[in-house]
Amino acid sequence: MTQDGAYVHGGGLDAAVARFGGSRADWLDLSTGINPAPVALPDLHPDIWARLPEAGLQARCIAAARGAYGVPETAGIVAAPGSQALISLLPFLLPQAEVAIVEPTYGEHRASFEAAGHRVTGIGTIADLPDGAKVMVAVNPNNPDGRRAGREALVELLGEMRRRGGLLVVDEAFADATPGLTIADMAGEPGLLVHRSFGKFYGLAGVRLGFALTTATLAEGLRQRLGPWAVSGPALALGAAVLSSETARKRIAAEVLVQARRRDTVLAAAGLPLVGVTPLFATVETPGAGDLFTALCRRRILTRPFAYRTDWLRFGNPKDDGEAARLAGALAEAARERHP
Amino acid sequence: MTQDGAYVHGGGLDAAVARFGGSRADWLDLSTGINPAPVALPDLHPDIWARLPEAGLQARCIAAARGAYGVPETAGIVAAPGSQALISLLPFLLPQAEVAIVEPTYGEHRASFEAAGHRVTGIGTIADLPDGAKVMVAVNPNNPDGRRAGREALVELLGEMRRRGGLLVVDEAFADATPGLTIADMAGEPGLLVHRSFGKFYGLAGVRLGFALTTATLAEGLRQRLGPWAVSGPALALGAAVLSSETARKRIAAEVLVQARRRDTVLAAAGLPLVGVTPLFATVETPGAGDLFTALCRRRILTRPFAYRTDWLRFGNPKDDGEAARLAGALAEAARERHP
Repeated sequence: MTQDGAYVHGGGLDAAVARFGGSRADWLDLSTGINPAPVALPDLHPDIWARLPEAGLQARCIAAARGAYGVPETAGIVAAPGSQALISLLPFLLPQAEVAIVEPTYGEHRASFEAAGHRVTGIGTIADLPDGAKVMVAVNPNNPDGRRAGREALVELLGEMRRRGGLLVVDEAFADATPGLTIADMAGEPGLLVHRSFGKFYGLAGVRLGFALTTATLAEGLRQRLGPWAVSGPALALGAAVLSSETARKRIAAEVLVQARRRDTVLAAAGLPLVGVTPLFATVETPGAGDLFTALCRRRILTRPFAYRTDWLRFGNPKDDGEAARLAGALAEAARERHP
Repeated sequence: MTQDGAYVHGGGLDAAVARFGGSRADWLDLSTGINPAPVALPDLHPDIWARLPEAGLQARCIAAARGAYGVPETAGIVAAPGSQALISLLPFLLPQAEVAIVEPTYGEHRASFEAAGHRVTGIGTIADLPDGAKVMVAVNPNNPDGRRAGREALVELLGEMRRRGGLLVVDEAFADATPGLTIADMAGEPGLLVHRSFGKFYGLAGVRLGFALTTATLAEGLRQRLGPWAVSGPALALGAAVLSSETARKRIAAEVLVQARRRDTVLAAAGLPLVGVTPLFATVETPGAGDLFTALCRRRILTRPFAYRTDWLRFGNPKDDGEAARLAGALAEAARERHP
């Protein structure tokens, strides 16, 4: 991986340590949109580790996801080792087509459709759907600019994609903290696939668990291609336990909103204008964001730069007042360096 | 899943409980070839669950696998959420071809190659390679009949597949306890891919970790298709810790051999002739094996029947003398029922 490539996704702490020094424990990693205060891990029975994950455990996890995301019984749900696995796989199940992706956004959608030989067109908004597109991808809320597509607009778009015999893909990886946005309740209708991520909202990205909510037919196709036992026993058990708790979901949603307010207060105090926010990250626009990235790295704070927008920088949530104060201090020092 | 389908793979304990009663804890599950005495779980740092698995952790796990399996530095190694994920994926990376599989064997090889549109021919031994075959699959030692392909024969076969510009796939899922068999040390040579499984030998099948050992090019193709972070943090951390311990490997190998001797003593005392054995399972041949399967199920012991060989039954390892005595008692009762 090149030095720049190391920051293509957030979470490249090893690379940052190698370049800027310190030990991992010295760093404050704000480079992802993952909740920094994970839900408590329930006890896992030793069999969860030892045995092949059984149909019953898989069914409990799927049922918990169905309840948590409000998915109708008629819809198919596929569990995968992270929603990334489904993003990588989906393009290989679809006939080659023109694919429109609302950009800038999470880069793996384009990479996966291109790897499967589709013709990808980047569009600026969901209103720009090209006439020939048979697949449309929108991340909602969008990463990294936080843009929201309204439910009505998506429903209209779904109607259009269905008339074309096509597919609307809505990636709701960051939708858990903004439940008003989701169209997971429409999953199962022809022409719609919704991606959901377990790890970001619940702060357990290492577990690798994500879901596609779609028609029974497309779900079965994805399941076949993943093969049996694609998701680990611990991931299924955690998903079944955590997703079935409405109490946990509401508490985490409230905690994440507190984190977000704290984060935005720090960024506002630093005079950094927001491009867009979600409860799990904020992106700012500032000339020379690359210099700010470096200045923060020298203070052992990792953020997320963008090769395609060198004036943007994305901040995940500090987990508490201490981390927020550390960020505020580093931003103030960086500002003094830039405008002494 | 149909009632019969429930036993297509071992490990269908939920289905057995639903059909024959009892609770899961009442059952002795001998339906898989998974070591019933798992290696002790090392402590996992909370970050392993919370953070996206980083390149450094992935590299440590790959390095541990390289050492454990004796793979040359020039070979590529891909980690996946179980070797099944690689079995499912591989056929989609290869140009459509005639594929020869030594059968009977683990059914997912055929299913995956057929799902990807290849033409599959079942052959009886590795000596029966059809002239037109560009891909050849051998499981070594074979599941369920325990047959071994000698190293010299495989090396010769590799030469032939290479002359054809083809690929020899050797699935060494059960090879850890019989290290003399492996050709993992030849990985990296053109035309060879070796599958290895972490969960069976170490008794941690729920973790989902497997490896393909092959050329750097094919490894990169598999990695691209899996996408980033396909393997969970806990799986990578366990793999890195366990596979790097030669002490653990030797102790487990010795334990598994004790289990196998205990198992074969019980089967011999019951007068059940062995079709074949590996240290992790034994398959017996007996007329009406289906009745024996049912008789054992009524005593809450799950074994593995085969739709294509109704006179075969496969037994995993009882983990201790108590489980072995329970199996011996059930077999004696079943024999008295069959020949009163």
